[in-house]
Amino acid sequence: MNQEHAHQLQVGIEAVKSREISNFYFVACGGSMATLTPAQYILDREIEIPSAVYSSNEFILRAPKALGPTSVVISCSHSGTTPETVQATEFARSKGALTISLTHLADSPLWNAAEYKLHYDWGTDARAEDNNYGILYRLIFGILDALQPHEKYARAIASVETGLHDAFERNKAMTLEAAKAFGSQFKREPLIYTMASGINYSHAYSFAICLLQEMQWIHSSAIHAGEYFHGPFEITDYDVPFIIIKGIGETRSMDDRAHDFCRKYSDKIVLIDAETFDMEGISADVRNYFANLIAGVVLRQYAQYLSEFRGHPLSVRRYMWKMEY
Amino acid sequence: MNQEHAHQLQVGIEAVKSREISNFYFVACGGSMATLTPAQYILDREIEIPSAVYSSNEFILRAPKALGPTSVVISCSHSGTTPETVQATEFARSKGALTISLTHLADSPLWNAAEYKLHYDWGTDARAEDNNYGILYRLIFGILDALQPHEKYARAIASVETGLHDAFERNKAMTLEAAKAFGSQFKREPLIYTMASGINYSHAYSFAICLLQEMQWIHSSAIHAGEYFHGPFEITDYDVPFIIIKGIGETRSMDDRAHDFCRKYSDKIVLIDAETFDMEGISADVRNYFANLIAGVVLRQYAQYLSEFRGHPLSVRRYMWKMEY
Repeated sequence: MNQEHAHQLQVGIEAVKSREISNFYFVACGGSMATLTPAQYILDREIEIPSAVYSSNEFILRAPKALGPTSVVISCSHSGTTPETVQATEFARSKGALTISLTHLADSPLWNAAEYKLHYDWGTDARAEDNNYGILYRLIFGILDALQPHEKYARAIASVETGLHDAFERNKAMTLEAAKAFGSQFKREPLIYTMASGINYSHAYSFAICLLQEMQWIHSSAIHAGEYFHGPFEITDYDVPFIIIKGIGETRSMDDRAHDFCRKYSDKIVLIDAETFDMEGISADVRNYFANLIAGVVLRQYAQYLSEFRGHPLSVRRYMWKMEY
Repeated sequence: MNQEHAHQLQVGIEAVKSREISNFYFVACGGSMATLTPAQYILDREIEIPSAVYSSNEFILRAPKALGPTSVVISCSHSGTTPETVQATEFARSKGALTISLTHLADSPLWNAAEYKLHYDWGTDARAEDNNYGILYRLIFGILDALQPHEKYARAIASVETGLHDAFERNKAMTLEAAKAFGSQFKREPLIYTMASGINYSHAYSFAICLLQEMQWIHSSAIHAGEYFHGPFEITDYDVPFIIIKGIGETRSMDDRAHDFCRKYSDKIVLIDAETFDMEGISADVRNYFANLIAGVVLRQYAQYLSEFRGHPLSVRRYMWKMEY
């Protein structure tokens, strides 16, 4: 575990503890916004202080009236250079909010914009407790434990620090063959829907917009499993592919219902079922908050093999970073 | 104007005024959830009390910790029978929240579940001030005026009561030929994206999930104009259709940016531009909150002609209301 990260977290959490807090805002773009979203879900269930997620420009232009000196604004940009997120952090700070930013790049514009800075590791060598979700979860359970101490939060932090990395590795190994089969079977699909609910929804969203639309140029849309029955389910047919994430815990019944219906009418269902995950090392009473992270790692491996079977590397872009926009 | 509606609104607004309020929740499914969403946007900008939108089952199963006796829960179901929304309203009431429900059907399960009940008119004869959005806007601006009186809110209510209906009619007439051209030109498209931001986003969402996916079996996804550049824009190509709603006011710059990029690489852009709307009769200082309602009416007419040119009536379903799900 990186000691600098631990120190940065401690300083940020102390700052939150020292202030009167009336709301939390999670602000970022695209994949980084999706990364922050599970933290909002956890706060929503665990604490009475309200919280919300915004795409950075929507946050700046909408300018929520409750944003002010009693707000905590948590932002994230992998490169630390996403202009909208840098501006949103500056905007929040100008309103007196306590700002905390997560980024892989220290001394980046985002790093310099935020009052409290959290670096995370990245790449094949990075440990899970020090990567983006690891830092975020240690932050959010640390804030919860500071504001309303409970042993459960300490167990959640210990789960990140000692159990998450190995859980990622074991579940990746367990789903390797399934990922290859997915890549082979779905390589010619021009459209693949994703579906999830609760804390897993943001993984359906990021898989749709980052992995499929952005990195594979495959049409997609993330469907909320509860919303599915109020419109989207009418496009279900034998040849329409769906990747369905089924979580564990409180929202699973929504996923079950959507999966039960969808598989009756589509022959192309890919099920990522959190009940099949090996969650050894993650405290039993917080597994509902951790299964989504494993689903994200499993899905990333699915995308990797889809990319290989399609001969379309995940790194290829036609617009992003190649022109002004 | 229906006097019973006016009375129901008065009673509901008085109830909100008489309570200490710490948060607002807007709870419904699909098209009804989309209908409520502009009201959350207005509260977000106008008042410090936090508010959030949930799909009904997500609300029940997530069970936000802040839900309680100082909450106001506003729910909506057209038929008044949507089981998830009836249960969500009962759930909120069991937690002590003040519940207000909008429905077209008096004495329906939703009507009976809620403490305060708002009926709205529907159909070709219905006046805009008495339909779903008319009642919702009179409610939300009435609540704002009760909690923090301001002449702007009175002007907004007057705009609903005296200007909205005619504005709908005039703008429908103005866009009739464009709607026919859309229907003719896009009738063979298997996929049509929608895009918007700010208060207009929920119209992009409902057009995607209700009009296109549900009623036309056309693949779709609502893309947030700010999120477009963080993934989805990579699927833009000359033959990929986008319906883009450009609003007026604070979030228009996001729509401009997305439209400017998208039209460079797609030859199939359908632009719904609120700046071209005739908003006579709507007070100038609240037009940013009303243009989305006109966009919704214009889009509905677009869907109607798409349906006619495709020979696929908007009323056809293969699953909805036809089986258990």
